[in-house]
Amino acid sequence: MVIEIFRNPEKYNKKQITLKGWVETFRSNKKIGFIELNDGSSVKNIQLVIKSDNKDFAILDELSIGSSIKVTGVIKHTPNSKQEFELVVDELKILKLAHKDYPIQKQLMNLETLREIPHVRHRTKYLRSVMLIRSSLSQNIHKYFTLKSFLNVHSPIITSNDGEGAGETFKVSSEAIENFFGNKKATLGVTGQLHAESYALGFGKVYTFAPTFRAENSNTKKHLAEFWMMEPEMAFYDLHETIQLADDMLKTVIKETLEDRKFEFEYLNEKSEGQLLEKINTYLNNELVKLDYSKAIEILKKYSDKFINNDLHFGVDLATEHERFICEEVIKGPVAIINYPKDIKAFYMHQNEDGKTVAAFDLLVPGIGEMIGGSQRECDYDKLLNRVTQLGIDKEDLDWYLNLRRWGDVQSSGFGLGFERLVMYVTGAENIRDTIPYPRTVNNLRM
Amino acid sequence: MVIEIFRNPEKYNKKQITLKGWVETFRSNKKIGFIELNDGSSVKNIQLVIKSDNKDFAILDELSIGSSIKVTGVIKHTPNSKQEFELVVDELKILKLAHKDYPIQKQLMNLETLREIPHVRHRTKYLRSVMLIRSSLSQNIHKYFTLKSFLNVHSPIITSNDGEGAGETFKVSSEAIENFFGNKKATLGVTGQLHAESYALGFGKVYTFAPTFRAENSNTKKHLAEFWMMEPEMAFYDLHETIQLADDMLKTVIKETLEDRKFEFEYLNEKSEGQLLEKINTYLNNELVKLDYSKAIEILKKYSDKFINNDLHFGVDLATEHERFICEEVIKGPVAIINYPKDIKAFYMHQNEDGKTVAAFDLLVPGIGEMIGGSQRECDYDKLLNRVTQLGIDKEDLDWYLNLRRWGDVQSSGFGLGFERLVMYVTGAENIRDTIPYPRTVNNLRM
Repeated sequence: MVIEIFRNPEKYNKKQITLKGWVETFRSNKKIGFIELNDGSSVKNIQLVIKSDNKDFAILDELSIGSSIKVTGVIKHTPNSKQEFELVVDELKILKLAHKDYPIQKQLMNLETLREIPHVRHRTKYLRSVMLIRSSLSQNIHKYFTLKSFLNVHSPIITSNDGEGAGETFKVSSEAIENFFGNKKATLGVTGQLHAESYALGFGKVYTFAPTFRAENSNTKKHLAEFWMMEPEMAFYDLHETIQLADDMLKTVIKETLEDRKFEFEYLNEKSEGQLLEKINTYLNNELVKLDYSKAIEILKKYSDKFINNDLHFGVDLATEHERFICEEVIKGPVAIINYPKDIKAFYMHQNEDGKTVAAFDLLVPGIGEMIGGSQRECDYDKLLNRVTQLGIDKEDLDWYLNLRRWGDVQSSGFGLGFERLVMYVTGAENIRDTIPYPRTVNNLRM
Repeated sequence: MVIEIFRNPEKYNKKQITLKGWVETFRSNKKIGFIELNDGSSVKNIQLVIKSDNKDFAILDELSIGSSIKVTGVIKHTPNSKQEFELVVDELKILKLAHKDYPIQKQLMNLETLREIPHVRHRTKYLRSVMLIRSSLSQNIHKYFTLKSFLNVHSPIITSNDGEGAGETFKVSSEAIENFFGNKKATLGVTGQLHAESYALGFGKVYTFAPTFRAENSNTKKHLAEFWMMEPEMAFYDLHETIQLADDMLKTVIKETLEDRKFEFEYLNEKSEGQLLEKINTYLNNELVKLDYSKAIEILKKYSDKFINNDLHFGVDLATEHERFICEEVIKGPVAIINYPKDIKAFYMHQNEDGKTVAAFDLLVPGIGEMIGGSQRECDYDKLLNRVTQLGIDKEDLDWYLNLRRWGDVQSSGFGLGFERLVMYVTGAENIRDTIPYPRTVNNLRM
């Protein structure tokens, strides 16, 4: 694979190798031809050089962008020239010509146009880089939890409970069989957390990493109707141990991905004029600070003229402008805001003794704001039932969940990481639709 | 964690440690008490021994099965006694008592009853073992493909194409917003393959591992409405390279899981009177044999009186009885049946030159029959279009997919592994509902 050549220049220099891949660009004159070949192993192309005395030189006349080719030749390592490597062609073969209407051509295309063709847009340098990083992040998340002895639990996707009591859900039905699931309303899960909690009770440490769904009518750069969530849940953990885990997980996964996808980060960093890696390193090299929600409100009040939402008092939810101000201007590094007012958080969060706040946290990161949200769970049956009743949530649907508290559930904690938010953060993508292969949003279901 | 003690007896012997977990059983007399503690790290319990002169001895009077406790004591390694380890209690604390109505009690419960309580059934030895093995299989699949430089692609779940042109689909809709996805019919994907193919074209080697859905009205031991599928797709691979990969992947993942979950396999093997590991080892220690479908039919014909389905001729699909006979009685090891009649296989499979068969394979394994199905894909645009038209599949919906063939797609191949089928196979589970945390089937949507 092409990436191996860039990783081991010494090993491949002057060796003959065979590669298969796709033509990214090509040009030629009467004496010599150049082809940029990419095989998907990284954002790096390798330049093929073919001279006019080569028996396959005429192939350049038929070639088109996007065609798949097979090439054999000798690697020439030229570290001081513009191209770090060349492959001097011995033999060139077209495997499959791409028709001239192949939509990815040499000129740059804007991301909006590319969103119309999700089945080919990853064959551009930018989307290729984003998707390679996405894959590494996913694999490093599994690696992290495997090494920490977490059980990978597959929470159900089709569910009969309305997870967080928040967010519009999609309904699931069968055309052929009426009431496929009996008299139960079947929806697509908005979270795997509640089911994961039942597995933490018994297995100790578990995580889900799976698609979740929201039928929200929002056409923004930050919303998807279908997105992946990673949700760990740990028995016996308190709020502070959970924040510690969230911080360590995120930093470890990002560091390993920076190593795995060195070339893609170089490419994206150059595009951002150095800002991308600076932003990521500010996060990685700064210790996480914990800050009480009430304290955060006090601080923000002093700067209220800086904000659009400037009615700041205990009980208001923090907007992205507040979150970013706290971590970028006040703390200048990552912050976990803790102990939020209970009225702005979910019913299952542990009620603190003050009667006003819950043991919740949001992990804020410079450059994006909230990355992770989590909490210690309320494990007192009566308190939890009380809260469910207060909020008018259907108790019957959640009976199974409430019962966990009666059956040895002393305390568990967990958090959720919206995976596409993480991809946005580390790649610098401005629109979440460019971080997932086939984005689904309101009025948008391509392919 | 308890598993560490069993893995490193020397290290922990005579050391004082603290554990948190749940009470599996307990008994006591006036002089001494015994508690079986499980912390979910493995199927192994550790026996706690508490003497009557211990200040916490009275706790045994209040204790109940399922309660969470915290214990500090000294490990005693006694390899020749019934209990390999004991923990002699210094301090014992109840963290949360389980109410007496906790449904998992000491007596064995049948699996059918346990299916009614998916939120607690994993707190039995059997389901705990199955779910620990399931998690290891999942993590080892990700590890295998990560090490082989495959891209982890997240194919969409909500889709507008009817994947394989086979199987009933679930419809997705929003109650709040009519026609959420415009005029497109939105369904839950029955496969991630077609989208994965678009990513193989550009990235080379990719895999999906995600939930898939079938709205089938089947109430059998082998069917689920929601199940996980693992589907790799490789550009430039032919049928034979793909079979080689399937065999290597499956054997590697199973071997690593046998090591990771040694205690759970010991437990399940004992339950099966040694048949489980014998079956798995027959698979692992035998080389895969390839057998032409036509040849298989010829062989089966000779034994037709052994089968319920005994009308055997070119064109019939093989039933499980045939598949198992071939690998258990004829080959006595794993078999890949290749080159099936095109009329019993999916439209996207590569059409062989004989005009009758396609370059498909089913990997059959002793003890279960078909485990994996795959094929080389048809990459000739005209042939593929022809087949789509012949079968009356809506061409417009698949236009994007067909176009891949016009844009450099020389050849890709891939296969699908039904993940719960794999869990059934390696655990010996007889009902697929016992291999997934919250099974969904027709008329069954618990929690």
